[in-house]
Amino acid sequence: MTGARRTGEFDLIERFFKPLSRAAPGAFALGNDGALLTPPEGESVVVTKDLMVAGVHYPENEEPSTVARRLLRVNLSDLAAMGANATAYALGLALPEDVADAWVEAFAAGLAQDQEAFGVALIGGDTVATKGPAVLSLTAFGTVADDACLNRAGAGVGDDIYVSGSIGDAALGLRAVRGALAALAPEDRAALAERFRLPEPRLALGAVLVDVATCAIDISDGLVADLGHLCTESGVAARIAADAVPLSEPAQRAIAAGVAAIGDLVTGGDDYELLFCAAPPARGTVDALGQRLGLAVTRIGTIERGEGVTIADADGRPLTLGRTGYAHF
Amino acid sequence: MTGARRTGEFDLIERFFKPLSRAAPGAFALGNDGALLTPPEGESVVVTKDLMVAGVHYPENEEPSTVARRLLRVNLSDLAAMGANATAYALGLALPEDVADAWVEAFAAGLAQDQEAFGVALIGGDTVATKGPAVLSLTAFGTVADDACLNRAGAGVGDDIYVSGSIGDAALGLRAVRGALAALAPEDRAALAERFRLPEPRLALGAVLVDVATCAIDISDGLVADLGHLCTESGVAARIAADAVPLSEPAQRAIAAGVAAIGDLVTGGDDYELLFCAAPPARGTVDALGQRLGLAVTRIGTIERGEGVTIADADGRPLTLGRTGYAHF
Repeated sequence: MTGARRTGEFDLIERFFKPLSRAAPGAFALGNDGALLTPPEGESVVVTKDLMVAGVHYPENEEPSTVARRLLRVNLSDLAAMGANATAYALGLALPEDVADAWVEAFAAGLAQDQEAFGVALIGGDTVATKGPAVLSLTAFGTVADDACLNRAGAGVGDDIYVSGSIGDAALGLRAVRGALAALAPEDRAALAERFRLPEPRLALGAVLVDVATCAIDISDGLVADLGHLCTESGVAARIAADAVPLSEPAQRAIAAGVAAIGDLVTGGDDYELLFCAAPPARGTVDALGQRLGLAVTRIGTIERGEGVTIADADGRPLTLGRTGYAHF
Repeated sequence: MTGARRTGEFDLIERFFKPLSRAAPGAFALGNDGALLTPPEGESVVVTKDLMVAGVHYPENEEPSTVARRLLRVNLSDLAAMGANATAYALGLALPEDVADAWVEAFAAGLAQDQEAFGVALIGGDTVATKGPAVLSLTAFGTVADDACLNRAGAGVGDDIYVSGSIGDAALGLRAVRGALAALAPEDRAALAERFRLPEPRLALGAVLVDVATCAIDISDGLVADLGHLCTESGVAARIAADAVPLSEPAQRAIAAGVAAIGDLVTGGDDYELLFCAAPPARGTVDALGQRLGLAVTRIGTIERGEGVTIADADGRPLTLGRTGYAHF
């Protein structure tokens, strides 16, 4: 945690970031070389790290508090996929040399807002200058009981496949952010854009899934791509029914208006819903969990022998997809 | 740990980074949303995070294996300053869109070499593309007994002040890397440049200091600046004797040749030596530790009441310094 090499940067940390560390005893108020994480007895620390680049993962002119909240949320989503209790995060900011204090202040305000909402605190990090676009790195920490951590490798043949929430909204939302989808009503465009901008990490669902799911992943690359990752890590295949995939009302209207197809939605990224598997006897339990949390949890298919992901249309025929997840590298 | 969005990036991870995770059971071979860190009973996880930007923290044309090793080492140095046992790291790479596979391969080879040397393994991360210079983020993890962690806040009035190794070499080394210091012999320039390029994290010293030091910090911003940080966090002042500061032979020859002054060396950054305090009765113990580790450990001053850092010349007069640490932000 060096790199703090000029009054300017110390000032930024002192003014905007130190207050974010107040709730974390192991953070030493950001006045140390590192921080301490002490998991409860019988639990481990879960670590995840996601980067965002200005102009790649968010528009350069995006509201800085939204950038901050999205950065935190996409990382918390990874913790949710492991069934972890989110506790803390470290921040690595490479900011343009001419970044305004107001930008940093608004960025920190976004973090403060979501820290409160998700019960996490800043424990450390580093801030440096770059001649290129901003590169924002966040490492999120949680805790999970040693024998309970969910991962991608546990899917068994015959397992049911579930997703939380609705699928494809963020991909449509990104199009809305870019000014497309004029065929939709403004409130639909706004709702979809919000789903892209501020995904909801499914921490509460992840935490209760540790007792029932055989595996889990969060949907960042797209339903088909991430289900593919699950299958690869578990050594199995998956078959899902296109018409079982849960769609929001704005997404249904986008399909009805002819501006989106189901294939776009199941391959679109950034939903940050949870995708998980459970054995058929657990159906009642899974339904009850969804109801208890007030969150749609939908069974969309089955794990099979073999490899790869098949999406069947209403007649049981495989849907042909143009792409599986989007690329930026 | 998403962001892996195109075959190209999955390939990079599969080919170059997955092998680096082999020794870490909680890494899930990088095939999961996150990783697990399970500290031994009675110990906590220590976290530290440092970024490097191409063209700011290292020359754009620097050998990629050296960039990787330096990135890892500056983070391990922070763990050393906390008395931690280094165990693992996560990597966040924002690389130029046109980065060559050979660059990534050499970068990974550098990590492999230093992983082996320092007993750590890769547990996860994220790789994205940027239109700007490379931004490299590393989060390093270690473990430390819950009651043993060193920090910056423990210096007491009357404590002795010590440093490991020699001071100012890296600042001279940076000048040598930039083609300066022509007055020195080529082997002196090479030795100094090496001290800048590949600092030595003092992990073994940090680990034994937990029983004897009252506080510690690693010298990244410069001896004077980092001693200032210690004093601020501890609420004390420091007085050091300029002629007690340990200098390498190349640094002594740089002073003799008139191309450097002691003021440059005590304010130059990037040495990554440990600066620590201990009570006077511990002098014998500290000397013995240094001898056991084969590492120079030099007493350079005393903690006093008040605030700020004073460097006294041979006549006891305060040295006037042009700067305290260098800035890039």
